[in-house]
Amino acid sequence: MSSTHPDESFFSSLAQPGIQRLRAYDPGHDLVAFRRRFEGRFLVELGSNENPYGPSAKAKEAVLGTIHDSFRYPDPLGGDLKRALAAKHGVEAASILLGNGSHELLMQFAQVFAGPGADVVASKYGFAVYAIAAQAAGATLHVAPCNADDHAMPRGHDLDAIAVTITPTTRLVYIANPNNPTGTWFGADAFAAFMAKVPADVLVVVDEAYAEFVDAPEWASALSLIQTHPNLVVTRTFSKAYALAGLRVGYAIAHPGLIAVMERVRESFNVNSAGLAAAEAALGDDEHLRWVVARNAEQRASLAEALRARGLMVFPSQTSFLLVKFAEPGDEARVARIDAALIDAGVVLRPMGGYGLGHCLRITVGNADENRRLLAELDKVLA
Amino acid sequence: MSSTHPDESFFSSLAQPGIQRLRAYDPGHDLVAFRRRFEGRFLVELGSNENPYGPSAKAKEAVLGTIHDSFRYPDPLGGDLKRALAAKHGVEAASILLGNGSHELLMQFAQVFAGPGADVVASKYGFAVYAIAAQAAGATLHVAPCNADDHAMPRGHDLDAIAVTITPTTRLVYIANPNNPTGTWFGADAFAAFMAKVPADVLVVVDEAYAEFVDAPEWASALSLIQTHPNLVVTRTFSKAYALAGLRVGYAIAHPGLIAVMERVRESFNVNSAGLAAAEAALGDDEHLRWVVARNAEQRASLAEALRARGLMVFPSQTSFLLVKFAEPGDEARVARIDAALIDAGVVLRPMGGYGLGHCLRITVGNADENRRLLAELDKVLA
Repeated sequence: MSSTHPDESFFSSLAQPGIQRLRAYDPGHDLVAFRRRFEGRFLVELGSNENPYGPSAKAKEAVLGTIHDSFRYPDPLGGDLKRALAAKHGVEAASILLGNGSHELLMQFAQVFAGPGADVVASKYGFAVYAIAAQAAGATLHVAPCNADDHAMPRGHDLDAIAVTITPTTRLVYIANPNNPTGTWFGADAFAAFMAKVPADVLVVVDEAYAEFVDAPEWASALSLIQTHPNLVVTRTFSKAYALAGLRVGYAIAHPGLIAVMERVRESFNVNSAGLAAAEAALGDDEHLRWVVARNAEQRASLAEALRARGLMVFPSQTSFLLVKFAEPGDEARVARIDAALIDAGVVLRPMGGYGLGHCLRITVGNADENRRLLAELDKVLA
Repeated sequence: MSSTHPDESFFSSLAQPGIQRLRAYDPGHDLVAFRRRFEGRFLVELGSNENPYGPSAKAKEAVLGTIHDSFRYPDPLGGDLKRALAAKHGVEAASILLGNGSHELLMQFAQVFAGPGADVVASKYGFAVYAIAAQAAGATLHVAPCNADDHAMPRGHDLDAIAVTITPTTRLVYIANPNNPTGTWFGADAFAAFMAKVPADVLVVVDEAYAEFVDAPEWASALSLIQTHPNLVVTRTFSKAYALAGLRVGYAIAHPGLIAVMERVRESFNVNSAGLAAAEAALGDDEHLRWVVARNAEQRASLAEALRARGLMVFPSQTSFLLVKFAEPGDEARVARIDAALIDAGVVLRPMGGYGLGHCLRITVGNADENRRLLAELDKVLA
């Protein structure tokens, strides 16, 4: 060690064991750089599952109303938003935990309930943050196998496999329904059967970031099991269907006793004033939400059909994105070339190499214009 | 344990050891409730060290400019703000870490660099978040004694005592300069002498949340030692002098290798879009900052004088608040009555019981109107 010329490895050696081996979450392409490169031209941003229809006008107006008071701290209790969420979901306000996006909450569940010597279970092709949360907490991640490619939900969660991966040292299970980045989902009956197998002292965090987009009749929110399963946590976000990704508001719903323990670690002012106001207002505009969800469903179906018509394998999706197979496993280089060529044409998708799905790209379902432009550029690139 | 009727203690038993004993940060009185109670009447909010002059008009305008794009995620790199901060402080952008307020960063330094078996050192009457950060990380907090009441900086940091509290198992030291809630500070020479005693593998986090308000000639930012002390971290915030508390932007400056390790744990979108834009714009309005700081200095001096004229002991302060002794230690009940009477009169201060200073109240230096109103109500209450 040199104290006068240390480098990252010196500081890493001072970090907690899990963090010494940790790699940060990869948020995808550098969009700010692309926006500068394409300044004045139309950039089709379909890499981050952002909602192209934007938030409710009521939410924008609510943000306006907070600007004058931005010298004040946010409400540390988030009371108004919690009450609105409680009314919407039919739970008490004490069952709700607010987060700086659900990302913060996903990290903190591991920080609070896992740690060195504890095991965390997630599924192969689960959201990348679960593994980061487990490792940052110093816990050991166990990855359950996923469905086979010939399953109705290829590479989706295999709940039986997840149940079998739980051991006496498991403290926490992360499940996404629908899942990102696969877009796949599971039904209410399968989940109820799964929960029946989970010990009462193992917490199950169900990430429902895309819940509002679902229309599959067999799906149901895990919220319906919250009352009977105190070890169940559901996380939601205002970043997707509510189109408030920039303002960072997520929440969790669980037993009030569980939430009270999480509140000990929550930073008092973790959700900013603009986000609190916008989320509350957005929640009051059901009409806008219904409109967004209908547009997404319509475009999801037509985009999937158009991609399949081009001979591409499109994973089933109940979300606002499609996972698309552009080559056979092993030919990741070809997909990287397609991705790069699309960027040159002003279309940004999400590479999946970090998920071990480098032969696929994840495509946000854009609005009609964006999807048309994507398909036109894709046709040129694939030609 | 009952799995059907669990309570908080059941979930607490599942939490990490440090968190089992953790109590959340106390953000003071419930201002939202008071605002409802005093609706339509003038409430003097002097409990949270908010900046009564508000942010730069440029910052407000910048927030306006982000509303339309709030469906987009924030820049995960915070590049523009980092570059502006780097230029301001004469460091490279890789030396800067952005936080959801400096609160988030203070928590994460312990999460990354301390843990079970590690010791964290802070001073008596240091900011409450340091103890919470240490305990949430599972580390052991050691509290160094502070200056005596007859010292020029009563109950301020005693750097010699802090140095002596560092042992071979110490990983992290939290110091605030100036300190909250005492308002006290130490000079550049004393700090340089302190740093010379700290081993190279012990990180020293200097919280300079109130730095912009300082005018004492002997004070200097710890930033001047960053180049020669790679184990030194300085945190700053946009919540105080820049008056953007509602938008949650803080930052840390340190060796790029240290920042790189912290970046592994940072949530990609931890700072919201409105905050990023507002902070960058605020940084570009030096004139507003100078104006705010001058008004604060003027009001700080006159408010301190007015309080001292009423026979009250006012701690020396280089911040935007004053710690004021309203009774002898042991007569906390009298001070609680004063606090309650002031609330009834529409004046909110910060009780200090959580700091073991229940015989004192912390008073934000308001603008001229607010201070006049405070003094008028105080005269009635003390009569």
